[in-house]
Amino acid sequence: MTEPVSLERVSTERKPAEPMSVADFEAAIRAVGAERYHDKHSFHHMLHGGKLTMAQVQAWALNRYCYQAAVPRKDAALISRLHDRELRREWLHRVHDHDGLPPDEPGGIERWLALTNGLGLDRNYVVSMRGALPATRFAVEAYVTFVREQPITVAVASSLTELFAPKIHKERIAGMLENYDFIDDKVMAYFKRRLAQAPRDANFALNYVLQNAKTREEQEACVDAVRFKCNVLWVQLDALQHAYVEGNIPPGAFRPEA
Amino acid sequence: MTEPVSLERVSTERKPAEPMSVADFEAAIRAVGAERYHDKHSFHHMLHGGKLTMAQVQAWALNRYCYQAAVPRKDAALISRLHDRELRREWLHRVHDHDGLPPDEPGGIERWLALTNGLGLDRNYVVSMRGALPATRFAVEAYVTFVREQPITVAVASSLTELFAPKIHKERIAGMLENYDFIDDKVMAYFKRRLAQAPRDANFALNYVLQNAKTREEQEACVDAVRFKCNVLWVQLDALQHAYVEGNIPPGAFRPEA
Repeated sequence: MTEPVSLERVSTERKPAEPMSVADFEAAIRAVGAERYHDKHSFHHMLHGGKLTMAQVQAWALNRYCYQAAVPRKDAALISRLHDRELRREWLHRVHDHDGLPPDEPGGIERWLALTNGLGLDRNYVVSMRGALPATRFAVEAYVTFVREQPITVAVASSLTELFAPKIHKERIAGMLENYDFIDDKVMAYFKRRLAQAPRDANFALNYVLQNAKTREEQEACVDAVRFKCNVLWVQLDALQHAYVEGNIPPGAFRPEA
Repeated sequence: MTEPVSLERVSTERKPAEPMSVADFEAAIRAVGAERYHDKHSFHHMLHGGKLTMAQVQAWALNRYCYQAAVPRKDAALISRLHDRELRREWLHRVHDHDGLPPDEPGGIERWLALTNGLGLDRNYVVSMRGALPATRFAVEAYVTFVREQPITVAVASSLTELFAPKIHKERIAGMLENYDFIDDKVMAYFKRRLAQAPRDANFALNYVLQNAKTREEQEACVDAVRFKCNVLWVQLDALQHAYVEGNIPPGAFRPEA
């Protein structure tokens, strides 16, 4: 016995949207950065414009450490899901970039600790993350979970904020060296290194996403992944602004010495 | 061949701390509430004191919906890890309390939607969570992940903020009914129901934790779980205050009509 109603249902269903062209898809990804990458955040402007106290820069650096420390875990989470050996090999250098690779590569986390050390923060305190804002830690772990759970192409897409990173790193290096007497070339090594690493990684990931997201739905999930990742970054600056600019430091978080 | 160095290592190791007495352990758990439960947050005082606009109460209600909607998932995550059938049966009513149980129990999420509906918010918009603050969603998902990943006793301990809930619910019911003409008895049904549910659940969970955390380390992990959960709640109010009191609404979040 057939159900006539199901035929009717089929005929009134919305047709699935056509996929975007590769050019439109790339433009949609880049538009997210123009709209809501964290270089639009007022805390970013204050940081680079020399408007923060040393204590506020300390708060930024120790919170941002949580993000740095999570990145190799999220990359390993992705690698753990890949059946394609070539893609695993390609992605693995990201773990080296952050965790280091003996004998010559100390890695980005170590470079970040050179920054927090240069700011006078105790290394063990930074690494313990005890003083980090809970909002920072929740945002960062949301990123790890996202990469662990979303479809591979969408997980790769969440890394695409790196397309927008070189500009912010350049602003950061120039602005911070110029505006703060407690910042020197040595402690800015992290960002200098990322100027070379990020574009290479971003281009690889962009090409991967452009080729592998085939349906409109997959493409939109990838654009949403870039939005999600912008939120991960934005929340961190919101939390810093609320706690250390507006003065609402939550219980247990880092309190700069007066 | 024995290694003398390992004997030396053993002798200089710190002795593990003695477990706390049950009374001290319970006091340590309750002290976390006194120190950092979200009834200490200024947004809470504004909410209950009638200091918020309807738009700000809308923002609170639609963000808090994310928390309500996550609770049965975190309870199911716990149940999915329990090999003890009695404990599963005990814990299952929490899912009913939130998701409902036909024919008579609509559940807490439905009651929450009566609140958001009473505030003039579109049901589909609330349920979609499109307008929720990213910080809210990250905090709420951190709670689900915590319960999914931590040892069972520690996961149970993270529910113990319910020990502190009846006081806040009473304040909320009285304060909101008195101070806002857009709030009536009907939309406050969620909180009235929780006045009966929360103490029963909290007492069960407290007894479970007091009995099952045996070492000092386990006890401290349970106290930390209550701190963690207080952070989950605190971050939500911080984000509301930053966005809707201080006026820093992040890209994509709910914007009240002027």
